[in-house]
Order: sequence, then C-alpha cells, then structure tokens
Amino acid sequence: MKFELTLLGTSGAVPAYSRFPTMQVLNVQETLYMIDCGEGAQMRFTDYGIRWGRLKQLFISHLHGDHFYGLPGLISSMGLNGRKEELTLFGPAALESMIRTMMPYMTKLSFEIKFQPIPQDRHELIFEDRRVQVFTLPLQHSIAAAGFLFRERQRPRSMRGELIEKYGIPYRQIPAIKAGADYVAEDGSNIPNELLTTPPPKPRTYAYCSDTVYSESLVPLVQGADLLYHEATFCERERPQAERTQHSTAMDAARIARQAQVRQLVLGHYSSRYKYLDVLLAEACQLFPDTLLGSDGGMVNVPLR
Amino acid sequence: MKFELTLLGTSGAVPAYSRFPTMQVLNVQETLYMIDCGEGAQMRFTDYGIRWGRLKQLFISHLHGDHFYGLPGLISSMGLNGRKEELTLFGPAALESMIRTMMPYMTKLSFEIKFQPIPQDRHELIFEDRRVQVFTLPLQHSIAAAGFLFRERQRPRSMRGELIEKYGIPYRQIPAIKAGADYVAEDGSNIPNELLTTPPPKPRTYAYCSDTVYSESLVPLVQGADLLYHEATFCERERPQAERTQHSTAMDAARIARQAQVRQLVLGHYSSRYKYLDVLLAEACQLFPDTLLGSDGGMVNVPLR
Repeated sequence: MKFELTLLGTSGAVPAYSRFPTMQVLNVQETLYMIDCGEGAQMRFTDYGIRWGRLKQLFISHLHGDHFYGLPGLISSMGLNGRKEELTLFGPAALESMIRTMMPYMTKLSFEIKFQPIPQDRHELIFEDRRVQVFTLPLQHSIAAAGFLFRERQRPRSMRGELIEKYGIPYRQIPAIKAGADYVAEDGSNIPNELLTTPPPKPRTYAYCSDTVYSESLVPLVQGADLLYHEATFCERERPQAERTQHSTAMDAARIARQAQVRQLVLGHYSSRYKYLDVLLAEACQLFPDTLLGSDGGMVNVPLR
Repeated sequence: MKFELTLLGTSGAVPAYSRFPTMQVLNVQETLYMIDCGEGAQMRFTDYGIRWGRLKQLFISHLHGDHFYGLPGLISSMGLNGRKEELTLFGPAALESMIRTMMPYMTKLSFEIKFQPIPQDRHELIFEDRRVQVFTLPLQHSIAAAGFLFRERQRPRSMRGELIEKYGIPYRQIPAIKAGADYVAEDGSNIPNELLTTPPPKPRTYAYCSDTVYSESLVPLVQGADLLYHEATFCERERPQAERTQHSTAMDAARIARQAQVRQLVLGHYSSRYKYLDVLLAEACQLFPDTLLGSDGGMVNVPLR
C-alpha cells in the first residue's frame, strides 16, 4: 500500500552543492511513476537503489533543460540493460522531436517509446491505470508548463471476514458487496452493506508544481492534497529575481499550501546561490509549519488514513 | 607550464559505482581543452572545482550518448552563468543538428557556439593555437569515431642570460637568437647559437583513444606519446564481449602502449560489470608496467623533460 515520493534532484537550473536537477519518482504499490528527468537521472537511480525496470510512465512538466536532459541517458541505459517493455513519455509535444533526433545514436534500443503530448493550459486527466489517475496542473512560467496531480484510485470497501461465516454469504457475492451491495439472505432478510463492510481508506494525492510563479489558480486544483511539492527557487529577499525568472519563493510555496489546506508541503528547485537552505525552510514554516526541505535522495511516505 | 589531464568520468556506456560517463579536461598552461562530454559534465566541473569559463574548445570523439549527453546541460549552464565567449565544438557533423534541436529550449544562451566538423577516417590537424596542435586519431568502433592527439607547441630555445652581458648582445637581437640564429658581434666574430642558448624542453603529447577495438594502425600515430589514454572496457576473460561491442580489453590497451613506446598509459571506460578494477590494472601491467588506473577526479600531470 505504498505511496512514497523519492526526490532524485532538488536543484534549480544550475546544479550546485551536490544537488542534481529536478527529478522525482512516485512509488505507488511498487509501480514507479517518474516526474521530470533532469541530467544525471540514470546515476541517481543507481545512487538510491531504485530499479528503473519498474518505471512505465514518465511525466515531463516543461522543456527547460534541467527538467528533461536526463532522458537520453536514461533511455539509452534502459536499452543497454535489455529493457523490453514500452515506456510512455507524457510531456510537451516538442519533446518527441528532440528525443527522436537522438534515437539513431542510442545503441540497442530494444523497447518502444510512446510519446503522449499533454495539455499545459488546463486541468485534465492524462493517464490512469488501476493504481492512480494523473491530471495536469497548469503552471505559470516563462514557457508553457504543467505540473501533475497523482490521485490514488478509490479502493473498494473491505468485507468484514467474520460476517461471511455468520450469514453464510457465498463467496461469489463478495465482489458485489465490496462494491456497495447489501446481502439478501436465503430467508429474504436484508443485511445492509454498512454492517458487512468497512469503508476504504481515503485515496491519497500528490501534487507536483514546478516551475511556476505564485499562482492562486492552483489552489482549488490541489485542495486538500496529502502532499504538495512546490518549487521554492528563492527566498523573499530575492523576490525581484523570482519575478524576473518566473519562479516562486519559499513564502509563495507556503501560501499555496496554506490556502489549499494540504497536509504536507515539500520544497525544492533551489537556486545555486543557496549553499544552506535553512533560510528557505524558516520562511515557509512561518506560514505553513508542515513543511519539509526536499533533498536529493529524500523520501516522503504518505500514510493511509 | 602545466600539461595536466583530469578525468571527469571513467565509466563505459552505463554509469555504475559512482563512475560518470567519459569526459576529460586537458589543462595546458591554464587553458582547458575538453575531450568528450558525458552526462553530468556540469556537475563534475563543480565537483572537482574546475572553472568552465577557461574552456574554449571541446572535442567530441563520436556520437554514442555516453560521450556527448552532457553537452546540453553544460552549454545551458554556461549561458545561465552569463558566458560571453564563443565555444567551439569539434566533432562528428551530425552533432550540430542534435544540439541545435535543443538550443531553442536553452534559456539565455548569451554566447555563440561554433560547430567544427572533424574527419574521423584520417589523421589530420584540426586545431591549433599558441599552446597546442590537435590531430584526429582514426578509431575502429561500431560507429565512426576519432580520438585526439594533443601536441604541445615547440617552445623557442632559452637564452643563457649570463652571456647577454658577456658578449654585449642588444636585446632586440634576442628573439632571433632564441629562434636559432647565431650572434655576430661588432668585431665580426660569430658566436654560435648552441653556445648562446639551451634547447627547449621536448613538446609534450597526450593521445586519447576511446572508443575502439585493438587497432595497430594507432601505433605509429601515438608513437612516443608522454601519456596515452586507451579505453579498457573489459578484461581478457570478456574478450568475446569486447569483440561483439567493438571495445578493447586492458591487455589490448597495454599492447598499444608497449608497441608505441609511450611513457605512461591511463585506462578508462570501464564496463559496469566491474565494481573493482584491480583485475584490469593487473592485466595491463603484465605487458606495460607504467599503467595507471584512471578514476573519476583523477589527475595525471605530464612533467617537462
């Protein structure tokens, strides 16, 4: 029942202080979903012992290099390792031509790559499997950009095992009961579903917002998220720089987190001007105490509730 | 009078054990020449405190990704750091279209990139400045590939200072004497150049050979080099694998070094199958004892003789 985020890189555009560019892996029940793919992705997988064989979908937010320059190397090495399974790349339409330009120079590409262009100007379902649904989150940046909202699928209700024997419920009826049906016994009596089952845990959500200026239009889209990653390239002292480059401050990130009443905020995409990041954490915590300072290799587990 | 090689990455195609893909910097009198540019180049510059502002020429041997995927990130970050000076990329002709495809997505590219296609099938002078001449070294690999030979410029002879006063030599004549002229004194007597000057140190040479199978045609081209880097992807036990992938064994590298009577051999481009590299070193040293095991961050200084 894992729902766990690993940050593989937390640097802004220019890597510094051993922080790699932006890339993350969301592990949902041992299936990996990758979000952005900064330079050095394949090395980070190795550094942190993450098995890229479990990766089937990869989501690219926008075409600034620090968010996708790791793709050619990762794809090449997957090929050299004999991958057979298709990999789907969700991202801006122009991503395909860039990767295809490089593909003739990738030795032994033994698997298919499927390109799936995504809308960047609206909130839309772009992918679903039996574990999650993924929606775009329109961001405001110097080029078109979209974050991603991962929403766990609603699980069925749980059958109370001790009642199966008590009421003599045939096993073939259990799926219907888990889906919400009452049980009608042989004597015609009705056993209500609320008695037979317990409610499922609340589906968990993870919202990824990078790169973006402070944008209140995100608030309703990430409302109540269990975990929000929001870029915090600068602190308030560098607000003019943040506005010029269309990035956020740690305070901006905290304002979104507070308004959206998320459970936890994790920061990242730090400017290379900051060797120590405590100033960013302190700034965000003033407004939103449940803030984590993201770090390369850092993991955030989202528990079931 | 520095002539010093720094290895930034010593991995073969798939990075492993904290070894990054192939990239090197040759420092000749504080001007940097970069050779290949594997993924993570910009991080390695930072890791090892090498200032990329001093880099003006970059030489790409061939278009396998582990030799050039670091270019987009390095170029982007140079731009973000406000570089103004032109950067010249020597490499296979197709490199240009690949980099140009990405350039619209590089923020703030504040400097010019000049692409200089190189021949890969012959030994040819491709660049010279006042410090070095650079020649291609045709390699035999699964795609067209060329190594590089860096040859230090011949310095002028050194004037023996104590003789300037003794013979009353006018300073304006010194450049000619350093270039080899005798000195004809006012009384008509001839002071031979051999007396007035000492010979310059021998120009130093560095030969870079990656990726390639064992190729005896390299021997005359790298004859007597002060330093030879030769790929050693495998050891002899993996010879079938070496032949299939058109790479060399450590023994192959040593055979070239011995036949060419180089001063020193440095190995690299190790397969990800080797965690420990002592087997490769031992194999090469059997044939050629002056062998170094290249490592990420390792430096090899070539002294004047």
